[in-house]
Amino acid sequence: MKILECVPNFSEGRDEAKLEEIVEQIRKTSGVNLLDYSRDEDHNRSVVTFVGDPDKVVEAALRACLKAVELIDMQRHSGSHPRLGAADVVPFVPIRGVGMEEAVEAAHRFGRELGERATVPIYFYEEAATKPERQSLPAIRKGEYEGLAEKMRDPEWFPDAGPHKFNPKAGATIVGARYALIAFNVNINTQDLEVAKQIARAVRFINGGFRCVRAMGVSLAGKGICQISMNLLNYHKSPIHRVFETIRSEASRYGLEIVESEIVGLIPVDALAGVASFYLRAHDFTPSQIIENRLL
Amino acid sequence: MKILECVPNFSEGRDEAKLEEIVEQIRKTSGVNLLDYSRDEDHNRSVVTFVGDPDKVVEAALRACLKAVELIDMQRHSGSHPRLGAADVVPFVPIRGVGMEEAVEAAHRFGRELGERATVPIYFYEEAATKPERQSLPAIRKGEYEGLAEKMRDPEWFPDAGPHKFNPKAGATIVGARYALIAFNVNINTQDLEVAKQIARAVRFINGGFRCVRAMGVSLAGKGICQISMNLLNYHKSPIHRVFETIRSEASRYGLEIVESEIVGLIPVDALAGVASFYLRAHDFTPSQIIENRLL
Repeated sequence: MKILECVPNFSEGRDEAKLEEIVEQIRKTSGVNLLDYSRDEDHNRSVVTFVGDPDKVVEAALRACLKAVELIDMQRHSGSHPRLGAADVVPFVPIRGVGMEEAVEAAHRFGRELGERATVPIYFYEEAATKPERQSLPAIRKGEYEGLAEKMRDPEWFPDAGPHKFNPKAGATIVGARYALIAFNVNINTQDLEVAKQIARAVRFINGGFRCVRAMGVSLAGKGICQISMNLLNYHKSPIHRVFETIRSEASRYGLEIVESEIVGLIPVDALAGVASFYLRAHDFTPSQIIENRLL
Repeated sequence: MKILECVPNFSEGRDEAKLEEIVEQIRKTSGVNLLDYSRDEDHNRSVVTFVGDPDKVVEAALRACLKAVELIDMQRHSGSHPRLGAADVVPFVPIRGVGMEEAVEAAHRFGRELGERATVPIYFYEEAATKPERQSLPAIRKGEYEGLAEKMRDPEWFPDAGPHKFNPKAGATIVGARYALIAFNVNINTQDLEVAKQIARAVRFINGGFRCVRAMGVSLAGKGICQISMNLLNYHKSPIHRVFETIRSEASRYGLEIVESEIVGLIPVDALAGVASFYLRAHDFTPSQIIENRLL
């Protein structure tokens, strides 16, 4: 069974009824499983997670985004999270039996169809990017909705699909393919935030750490400890256990220990199997040995 | 989704066509997934693994065992593995969304119906046992098929279901409920079999080790190392990581190390999640965070 995940972000986090209408489009698409959705009033933004066969996922994503473009008016939108459009960001994530090429293909197919049917300019990002400068989501989103009309006039920023014309109501949609992201936090028994920041620097890419790790040190004042708060952008390339063991080693130079860790939200079973096989030295273990995997 | 597993053992390991006929009964039952089957010529015995909704699993088990009773004649059976009947042992194993009580209920329902429809005496074992002396499979099987007619005359060994009359062709069927069994081997960098046996004694129940662990030390002559070969009978009560760490600690007193470990065959995702959450100190992790689990 093929499983592709889609995690669209919509620029509506205050009107619950509108979000429900959008989510309903996914619910009613057969062959697709809605896993989670949540909205944030301050960000005025919602995130939806669903999975299924690639064709069905593209279909559900189209229905939901067409509904979002119908219901959300960017001319009246405000919120603290950067955004470019009503259906703001739509990443496709290979989970199982699907390669990155197939996720990219789904993203391109989805983007071209949404662009045409909703007359919304489309930008492809990360693995689906058409040029290196568009790999970075923040680079595409720079200037936000308010700067989009002008940005689109720059030939550098002609859209990848959809009309070459600003859509005041819908803005633009950023469509991409990426690896499954794991939100992983590790707590250290120190109140010294500077130490936590040092450890975060040791593991994160921008300071010379692991290629697919974003990290920051934060203080958990209520607990009297600090946390290394991370996003693991590709657990195949920068696996959980390696990041964890590096934090353990860096903490030990200060005489500190890992108190606990936290996996936030969803995680693919492959990533867990990787952790177990590392610590058990079970070099030949494969996820096909997991009973539940046989049922999908 | 509820998942109950059934792992019937049949006293036929030489005639592939007969095994195929038996397995076909499971394949053609809708709502049931055949995971694995294999036969052993020396043992003259086959093991089949399938899963599904409890009602469907009972139905498939009945079909397969009725076919086994039809095709196998115990009067002509020989093989090196202890056995009592044609459909020799039928354990039901709770995997997901099913408690032990429900597995026991399925075992009892199956046993009563098979006993009646096939006129085969039934003994319930392990969690499904009707008295303490019948919890142990070897105790029920003692005397084997050849001693069964006489054993059944002892009021201590009246069957739990089915006729109180010896069935020469089918023998008896032992039906039970048990926890998922994990076959787990740990390799140590020593050629000294005595040391491996010492380590096996440290972890296994009969010598004072973990309650739900069977273990023996064996020599892997070809590799020049030894192995602690184990069955973990209940990974909730005697978890993989604890057994592994105890072996590591016991090996270290001899200056030895764990070279690798091996999970043989299938394992429930819960057991892996337990390993990962132990080593990552992820105390709050729950298997519902695993994406694939959301799809079952």
